[in-house]
Amino acid sequence: MAEQTTPIEEHSRQVCASFAPAADPRLSEVLQAVVRHAHALVEEVGLTRDEWLAAIRFLTAVGARCDDVRQEFILLSDTLGVSTLLELVNTAPAPGASEPTVLGPFYVPGAPLRSFGDSIVTDPATGGTPLVMTGTVKDLDGRPVRRASLDVWQVQPSGLYDIEEDPSKRNLRSRFETGADGAYRFTTVRPVDYTIPDDGPVGTMLRGTGRHSWRPAHIHFMITADGFKPLVTHLFDESSPWLERDAVFGVRPSLAVDMDDKECVYDFVIEAE
Amino acid sequence: MAEQTTPIEEHSRQVCASFAPAADPRLSEVLQAVVRHAHALVEEVGLTRDEWLAAIRFLTAVGARCDDVRQEFILLSDTLGVSTLLELVNTAPAPGASEPTVLGPFYVPGAPLRSFGDSIVTDPATGGTPLVMTGTVKDLDGRPVRRASLDVWQVQPSGLYDIEEDPSKRNLRSRFETGADGAYRFTTVRPVDYTIPDDGPVGTMLRGTGRHSWRPAHIHFMITADGFKPLVTHLFDESSPWLERDAVFGVRPSLAVDMDDKECVYDFVIEAE
Repeated sequence: MAEQTTPIEEHSRQVCASFAPAADPRLSEVLQAVVRHAHALVEEVGLTRDEWLAAIRFLTAVGARCDDVRQEFILLSDTLGVSTLLELVNTAPAPGASEPTVLGPFYVPGAPLRSFGDSIVTDPATGGTPLVMTGTVKDLDGRPVRRASLDVWQVQPSGLYDIEEDPSKRNLRSRFETGADGAYRFTTVRPVDYTIPDDGPVGTMLRGTGRHSWRPAHIHFMITADGFKPLVTHLFDESSPWLERDAVFGVRPSLAVDMDDKECVYDFVIEAE
Repeated sequence: MAEQTTPIEEHSRQVCASFAPAADPRLSEVLQAVVRHAHALVEEVGLTRDEWLAAIRFLTAVGARCDDVRQEFILLSDTLGVSTLLELVNTAPAPGASEPTVLGPFYVPGAPLRSFGDSIVTDPATGGTPLVMTGTVKDLDGRPVRRASLDVWQVQPSGLYDIEEDPSKRNLRSRFETGADGAYRFTTVRPVDYTIPDDGPVGTMLRGTGRHSWRPAHIHFMITADGFKPLVTHLFDESSPWLERDAVFGVRPSLAVDMDDKECVYDFVIEAE
């Protein structure tokens, strides 16, 4: 005799089974997991028809807010902690290696290459408090990594990234390469706390649930070197009042540094492939 | 000493906690469940960055396909079995009561009221095989329900609903009221199997996972009466080859009827409020 299943269990089983004969086994696996979790969610919270319709309207509004320069679904992923989780799931750093965090929506490939000690400020109207970032890129044994590439980018003191003002603008955004000693050094301005774009449906969700849209001040780094795993991370200003309340949950305690001094020293440890 | 938690558990806990102080406790409850299931999904399948980006692009494409007459997110909900699940969760019919199924996207309020025995065919070019639908609306004790309202709508033999051709068209769409004997009767044409709109991202998903977009032939009913719970359901043609493979998983065995005869008899049993 077959095991007793409820009508709901039987329904979910049928939906999952519909994906079984797929040409793409991985796509089927992921969609079956989507179905299982979506169904468990609906049953668990006892979702009403009105709430379902509100969810449909919310997703439609998120879609309508997307265009060439605004990605509201990524913002939704960020604010639900999914983007940070993705890094945790895909990058388990070896003990002693620098921790990764989210890439965010403001990275631009092909930033200008500058020399050791150069400033990344290109807009004379930038303002802000001068800051020098310096340190060494090392491997897990503490040996300097030569010819490591450091992409750096950060928000302007205005609270906007350069590309939010003008997609072709390149301010507070550069690339550096380490020499034989693995050292890096550049001049910038102290990053500021800023809000993620909150004039769309994701902002409405945040306000509707008593959340805020602030991110603690930080500088982005993407570090690559031959023979090493890429590291995508931030360094956070440890004095930011938002450090423990990041709207996108990107903070790791090991990434909070003292930016009160004019020179901030941080050594990155990257992992061999 | 605090219990050991993994960095992933700690991250999910933080994201859920961010919704705690909300003004709307139910919204927080639902969003916390969304976060828990979204995070469990990402961890369980080991979602890669490329797969995450593909998901973002898919949702963006679904959003871009929505307009005043097309709702691709509802289609996604339908094809993932969420819409049918919603009915199962919200309507547990009493033993003996007719089973509900999905409303679907083609219901239009304010259909023309017709008399016992009238035809719902208004377009002379409709074609198809004539069919009479008749029966009685009863309560759980088998007593006829007087003045029950039956909204009926169905696909045209062309495979399209009237409103897909012209949003103001009213063909195969009417309302009836029962008399003291609870009886209903109308003339129509036999419904045909048809495909859900599959020229958008949801259609791409179905094809990419070896699924089809067919629904088995059916007639929609929405039955309301003072003092009774509304019943939203279909009657399916039991001879349809798609009966056990409905693209939106709406079939219940109790709703499959013999439409081979020129007269199809079905008694609806509705439940007191």
